[in-house]
Amino acid sequence: MLQAPPAEPGMREEEVDTPALLLDLDAFEANLDTMAARLAATSAKLRAHAKTHKSPVIARLQMGRGAVGQCVQKVAEAEALAWGGIPDILVSNEVVAPRKLARLAALNGIAAVRVCADDPGGVAAVEAAAEAAGRRLEVLVEIDVGAGRCGVPPGPEAVALAERIAASPHLIFGGLQAYHGSAQHRRTPEERRAAIAGAGEAVRRTLEQLRQRGLPCPIVGGAGTGTYELELESGLWTEIQAGSYVFMDADYARNGSPPAFQHSLFVLAGVMSAPRDGAAVVDAGHKAMPTDSGMPLVWDRPGLRYERPSDEHGTIVVEGGARPRLGEKLRLVPGHCDPTVDRYDWYVGVRRGRVECLWPVAARGGMS
Amino acid sequence: MLQAPPAEPGMREEEVDTPALLLDLDAFEANLDTMAARLAATSAKLRAHAKTHKSPVIARLQMGRGAVGQCVQKVAEAEALAWGGIPDILVSNEVVAPRKLARLAALNGIAAVRVCADDPGGVAAVEAAAEAAGRRLEVLVEIDVGAGRCGVPPGPEAVALAERIAASPHLIFGGLQAYHGSAQHRRTPEERRAAIAGAGEAVRRTLEQLRQRGLPCPIVGGAGTGTYELELESGLWTEIQAGSYVFMDADYARNGSPPAFQHSLFVLAGVMSAPRDGAAVVDAGHKAMPTDSGMPLVWDRPGLRYERPSDEHGTIVVEGGARPRLGEKLRLVPGHCDPTVDRYDWYVGVRRGRVECLWPVAARGGMS
Repeated sequence: MLQAPPAEPGMREEEVDTPALLLDLDAFEANLDTMAARLAATSAKLRAHAKTHKSPVIARLQMGRGAVGQCVQKVAEAEALAWGGIPDILVSNEVVAPRKLARLAALNGIAAVRVCADDPGGVAAVEAAAEAAGRRLEVLVEIDVGAGRCGVPPGPEAVALAERIAASPHLIFGGLQAYHGSAQHRRTPEERRAAIAGAGEAVRRTLEQLRQRGLPCPIVGGAGTGTYELELESGLWTEIQAGSYVFMDADYARNGSPPAFQHSLFVLAGVMSAPRDGAAVVDAGHKAMPTDSGMPLVWDRPGLRYERPSDEHGTIVVEGGARPRLGEKLRLVPGHCDPTVDRYDWYVGVRRGRVECLWPVAARGGMS
Repeated sequence: MLQAPPAEPGMREEEVDTPALLLDLDAFEANLDTMAARLAATSAKLRAHAKTHKSPVIARLQMGRGAVGQCVQKVAEAEALAWGGIPDILVSNEVVAPRKLARLAALNGIAAVRVCADDPGGVAAVEAAAEAAGRRLEVLVEIDVGAGRCGVPPGPEAVALAERIAASPHLIFGGLQAYHGSAQHRRTPEERRAAIAGAGEAVRRTLEQLRQRGLPCPIVGGAGTGTYELELESGLWTEIQAGSYVFMDADYARNGSPPAFQHSLFVLAGVMSAPRDGAAVVDAGHKAMPTDSGMPLVWDRPGLRYERPSDEHGTIVVEGGARPRLGEKLRLVPGHCDPTVDRYDWYVGVRRGRVECLWPVAARGGMS
């Protein structure tokens, strides 16, 4: 069931019902502008990742600043974007289930949709769906550039799969998907640089072999908020798939990078119990924000620390300053932005202490 | 947006779209029956915790087997149950925000609703809402029986708060909320026994002091799936608030307890990539099941282990037997049932390999 929004435009921030997903619009727009300005100075384009925001509204704001399209991870996300008017969508992930592929092919009438493959069986599944729908589908070959998750090995296997796609009357070879997911969250700049250097080598080798076989490679897609400067530096990637830059989170903050972007996403939590000196209990726990990437940070209140999450509670430890009072509201910076957004039905957009807008998290719960 | 269900009644389990929240109906009904039979032999009643299932359908099945009502943690959950026909609901948690309390009071016309308090300011907030709605609200005093989260200290402070409630023309003193949350998940039976022995001592002392002040205490509520046998043994608790027993999860399994209940809840995941020997990638990661209580278990496939979750992926390591093939579906036992259920819009009820029913997770996303 869609939940009622926790606020109304015009309300003061402290009146917003908690827990709520708060978007600080000044910081958010600054992030959009910073990335757009950075990419305007290069030949690469932004294909922003909508798995982070799940919102056609935010997608449109990115495209208005020069993004060529959006990435998604799920067919349900592709649906939410296409239905919301976004014209160019890449599923940056393998889709092999026939029912999912039928839904994806059905979108091709209202948006350009592309999908990845890393297996001849997967290519055959996309081909069958394209043929059944009477539409040619564009397929990118995902290569494993070091993350060890999905993707064929770079080089001959990738080229063979590209040839298989290019040979099909129902498919178009769209290029290479070369995303190093785990590199985004490595702790030091040196670790991230080494990972992307290896990824670049894999891309370069595969591009050269595709060229030798006479196969044009329109897109080389990849990169995320943690490493995109390195992919840009290499000159190999044509599309940058950063997502988290619009929001940032505590995990990126702990990595000390990238400093160009500001925290714009918060969980607003309310103090619901304060029975002891030195601590208070807020109404935001595991169900309000996952802790897979560590605890949230308490925003702009240096003496307070969040710990001991349970399903619907978290403890605020007072290490300095005043204990928050019953009913008081605190901004928390989530540990990991993507699975936090996915918990909420609504963004509450705030500017200088006032609610300015409500946007639905349109693809929330889009599992498949 | 409410998502389309991932299945239809009559489908085979392997046709269900993934990831999906699967309820094995035989195991689930056995769990309902086992708890009902256990409590029928005692003077305590079951007030099952709906924060686990978020479903008026499941609440009704519990009440048909003798439960006197339901617990919830959030006003949004109380709304979902009351609108779904459940007549007796305790918010086993503090509610202090005026807008939330107004919504709770408004439910009192269609269901008996009760709420907890642990602070005179909280009592005053409930009183104001009750007065504004023209309805008397029943309030339980939450005492901290060792978890160190919410709750006034047992003894004089609890009695003073009970007297404050009983003296109000708008409120009714409903009893004590005495739940030891963290004890549910302690690893050994000895640790759990020690925790509940301490909780029992706190309850006994507070009951005695209430009796001395001439205050009847209709309800002593608490206990969960991990400890309820101990609360029953003490004879002090009148209402058992177990929730997880209907589903169980990998964390309870790792505690080796309680053996009376079966795993009935699964995340069905699909293999979407299998690029390397010895591993396969499934489409269920952080967004499909939180890992705050550890990794999920692969069900009924002894050679397979789940690891390395990312937002939408998990790796299945093959330690024995055959590697799962592309498109194959695997049942995963979630690490922690409550925040897993809360990710989905639908339960897919299956029995002996066939989809039998679809039930909405009605309070999904009910944050406030």
